[in-house]
Amino acid sequence: MTVERRKFLKGAALAGAGAGIASPAIAQSAPEVKWRLTSSFPKSLDTLFGGAELFAKAVSDMTDGKFQIQCFAAGEIVPGPGALDAAQNGTVEIGHTALYYFWGKDPTFAFGSAVPFGLNSRQQSAWFYEGEGTKLFDEFLKSYNVSTLPAGNTGCQMGGWFRKEIKTVDDLKGLKFRIAGIAGAVMQKLGVVPQQIPGGDIYPALEKGTIDAAEWVGPYDDEKLGFNKVAPFYYYPGFWEGGTVLNYVFNLNKLNELPKTYQAVLRNASVMAYTHTQARYDVQNPQAIKRLVQAGTKLRPYSNEILEAALKASNEIYADLSAKNANFKKIHDSMMSFRNDEYLWWQVAEFGFDNFMVRNRSKL
Amino acid sequence: MTVERRKFLKGAALAGAGAGIASPAIAQSAPEVKWRLTSSFPKSLDTLFGGAELFAKAVSDMTDGKFQIQCFAAGEIVPGPGALDAAQNGTVEIGHTALYYFWGKDPTFAFGSAVPFGLNSRQQSAWFYEGEGTKLFDEFLKSYNVSTLPAGNTGCQMGGWFRKEIKTVDDLKGLKFRIAGIAGAVMQKLGVVPQQIPGGDIYPALEKGTIDAAEWVGPYDDEKLGFNKVAPFYYYPGFWEGGTVLNYVFNLNKLNELPKTYQAVLRNASVMAYTHTQARYDVQNPQAIKRLVQAGTKLRPYSNEILEAALKASNEIYADLSAKNANFKKIHDSMMSFRNDEYLWWQVAEFGFDNFMVRNRSKL
Repeated sequence: MTVERRKFLKGAALAGAGAGIASPAIAQSAPEVKWRLTSSFPKSLDTLFGGAELFAKAVSDMTDGKFQIQCFAAGEIVPGPGALDAAQNGTVEIGHTALYYFWGKDPTFAFGSAVPFGLNSRQQSAWFYEGEGTKLFDEFLKSYNVSTLPAGNTGCQMGGWFRKEIKTVDDLKGLKFRIAGIAGAVMQKLGVVPQQIPGGDIYPALEKGTIDAAEWVGPYDDEKLGFNKVAPFYYYPGFWEGGTVLNYVFNLNKLNELPKTYQAVLRNASVMAYTHTQARYDVQNPQAIKRLVQAGTKLRPYSNEILEAALKASNEIYADLSAKNANFKKIHDSMMSFRNDEYLWWQVAEFGFDNFMVRNRSKL
Repeated sequence: MTVERRKFLKGAALAGAGAGIASPAIAQSAPEVKWRLTSSFPKSLDTLFGGAELFAKAVSDMTDGKFQIQCFAAGEIVPGPGALDAAQNGTVEIGHTALYYFWGKDPTFAFGSAVPFGLNSRQQSAWFYEGEGTKLFDEFLKSYNVSTLPAGNTGCQMGGWFRKEIKTVDDLKGLKFRIAGIAGAVMQKLGVVPQQIPGGDIYPALEKGTIDAAEWVGPYDDEKLGFNKVAPFYYYPGFWEGGTVLNYVFNLNKLNELPKTYQAVLRNASVMAYTHTQARYDVQNPQAIKRLVQAGTKLRPYSNEILEAALKASNEIYADLSAKNANFKKIHDSMMSFRNDEYLWWQVAEFGFDNFMVRNRSKL
């Protein structure tokens, strides 16, 4: 018996200190862990579902294959909208989703992804990573037994496909528009009849004229669903999604059981997947919009009249919901005060640079 | 002797397969590694130097403290501009710098950080992470015995502090402006006399009037150096730094010796530090610009006349350098063709959203 071993066996206070010996310590800090992730997205949306695969691969690469996360597409374990519940009740360890899908449970969820006239992509990153976003969301989500980290960002989305041109608020009256969440409520105030239709059913509804318009994501994802063939007018910007965040939700018990090392691995891998997902959109969207325009899509900006009416409607809805829901008010106030400071700064260098570059594209 | 051991000793082809046995494998895949990082930045620039500290902490957290990177500020091991050489010759394993500092060795280095009328911050991320940036830079840097990863981004920088207002290209003639690199060459074409002065010497030179103007970074960093007290006019945008990338340079031999697991840890930690550094700037700059304006700083946009003349001068310099330097031409062509596609897309949703938000700040 060596001195070290004798010391260890004699010291009652050291009962749990076996971890100090080389091989058990390694075994304990790097156990074999197998987790499952269920996504709200199908495999065909490779920037969305692909972000989760990138994340899982990074976790495996950083742990020498010891921490494996198996990614399941929507419907393989639970349907797409079941991702939050599945993480909450421990069916899986991770849900991969967009939190605004759950605004029916509580409208506060909307701030997890995007709200009308909210933050742009970089501002969302700043609010979640170095502002109050993650802390406020973890507080809010505690009662759902989950913790969250950003999983990706689509950038500013488009404002939807329309069968006919719309120029004024009057042109929106009675229009059947596939649009959900707070954005749907805003559009309703402008006279639209919001429609809730799953992604796969949009194309036939638009083709038949059962609906007049539909919004999805942006050029790269929209092109895959072929909307340009049945609705020629493609409006921008998607003012209800200035920079839509995708989210991981982790079952809290499972997360807390992980070694600290693996928790750090998850955090870092998630930021990598977030940043690479935005980068993939930024690489793919320019090519997709070129193809769409070459195939006859007509790009149209929303008129100022529509944008201003939508801003007014959004602020009314925020005031109503804030009066009724303390969670909503708390996160709303944090995000909007952050937004106001951001745009105070944005108007100077960032916007000044982009503005010159956009206006002088022909001379670049 | 067990069957396994006999097989192993008999199989010449398996000579290196000892790693298949459990405990040596763990020891080999998670060895104790101590690296040193030398930064081009002082500790006082907490967003810049702090990004390296964030990176080192993440690497330690993800390896249970086994992979330690000690961060040294400029001057502690080698002076700030020595970061590349120190990584190249193995004095340290990592240099933390901005590659455009080394444009005197080869102007191609400039594309590693920022060039006049180049990419904005998100476009830089996309080019490096999902475009050709990292591959092209690793090819270029091979002869310097280093490999690179983005370490952070400052966002669009400001256009400098001026003692007097400048409205036209004529107002720039003979002006002594502290500005370096390709941006200095562009300004020289516009009549400026570029000055090379270390950060710490700018304040007294501006105060005495030895120089008429100076550019540094943006509100948060500039405020620390107190330029607002000696030069009231703060111009924007810094058209030569649309989204300046900071860089890690890794000694190639040391990087290749690392277990694959640790290489993956470095990659993921670097993306985390990159994204958090940009987020920190986005959180700090709005507060800093408020304080500067409250203290009397006068914000001024560069006039279109100046911006257009600078764009023309930049394109002439790019053509000259491309004709002389194949490395420069290769990376220039990749970045600028990427930029042109990016702004084709940017003008639609991204710019449309920011444009409305900036113009309607008072109604938000």
